Amino acid sequence: MAFVEFPLNKAFMLFEPGPVILVSTHDGKKNNLMTISWHMVTDFTPTLALTTGPWNHSFKAMMKKKECVLNVPTVDIIEKVISIGDCSGKDTDKFKKFELTPLPAGEVAAPLVADCLACLECKIIDYIEEPGIFLLQGVKAWIDNERKERRTFHANGDCTFVVDGETIDLHHLMEDKIPF
Amino acid sequence: MAFVEFPLNKAFMLFEPGPVILVSTHDGKKNNLMTISWHMVTDFTPTLALTTGPWNHSFKAMMKKKECVLNVPTVDIIEKVISIGDCSGKDTDKFKKFELTPLPAGEVAAPLVADCLACLECKIIDYIEEPGIFLLQGVKAWIDNERKERRTFHANGDCTFVVDGETIDLHHLMEDKIPF
Repeated sequence: MAFVEFPLNKAFMLFEPGPVILVSTHDGKKNNLMTISWHMVTDFTPTLALTTGPWNHSFKAMMKKKECVLNVPTVDIIEKVISIGDCSGKDTDKFKKFELTPLPAGEVAAPLVADCLACLECKIIDYIEEPGIFLLQGVKAWIDNERKERRTFHANGDCTFVVDGETIDLHHLMEDKIPF
Repeated sequence: MAFVEFPLNKAFMLFEPGPVILVSTHDGKKNNLMTISWHMVTDFTPTLALTTGPWNHSFKAMMKKKECVLNVPTVDIIEKVISIGDCSGKDTDKFKKFELTPLPAGEVAAPLVADCLACLECKIIDYIEEPGIFLLQGVKAWIDNERKERRTFHANGDCTFVVDGETIDLHHLMEDKIPF
């Protein structure tokens, strides 16, 4: 693992494709992890939205500390990521159980996940109770440029997952649309 | 093209992987199309959230009619989908320009896009001005079971797109988590 800072104005690119992500939190005493697929970019600055609520143990830490880290895992750890979504931080130290390494972040108390491709430290701007949407402001981004496996994966919602395939470059169709 | 109805309680599966989608609208006079990547599922019923605002011509039709259709395109029409995002319905009939076929929907005036893999007819429940999020209730879903190309694609945000690759089945890790 070797995280280096990633330009904040490009950090939306980590989430725009819609990968399954790991949300890390710290409630003042303990780290925790949550697996989330329901998220979207809302601005390039970057701001993001994420759907969750009191049914997730991490919710309390997010409401209390107004911080979290969005971590982007790759397909080599897919079994850990999905199993993390299948138990609760209420009675499980997920970093320990799944042998993942928390690293200190720069701007928030929630940890970076060293085993992931990239991380975005976030401040929580607001929570919209109905339907349960956190609004997040990204404040610092990290990437592991040395990581060999870089393919993320997407949830189909039926316990199957689709892995990143080929990349298509369409610069010739939209040259003036890159926001950076 | 041969759309058949798709179970509404499974329709979140069309969007949870985070593909680029085409949003179709009807403003009372004309059909229009918009290319969107900033969307997420918010509940299995299904409800969804979609980020857009007055900077898109389709916004007016969505605010006026409180309806739209989310259409899921596949990689065989990626150039059309991206070019649709690069011009405005203000001065362009996008169905005509890109030779796409609008079909009557069942519950809304906005059209289904016959050239897509699947469609979800939606009623607009609310618009959250800051940061610009539509909340949608899916009311009727369609799928083309005869379509050969079924791979969707995801925006990286830099004019490149990642196409669906292999599928991984993790039923053995999360058998009790299927919501249908």
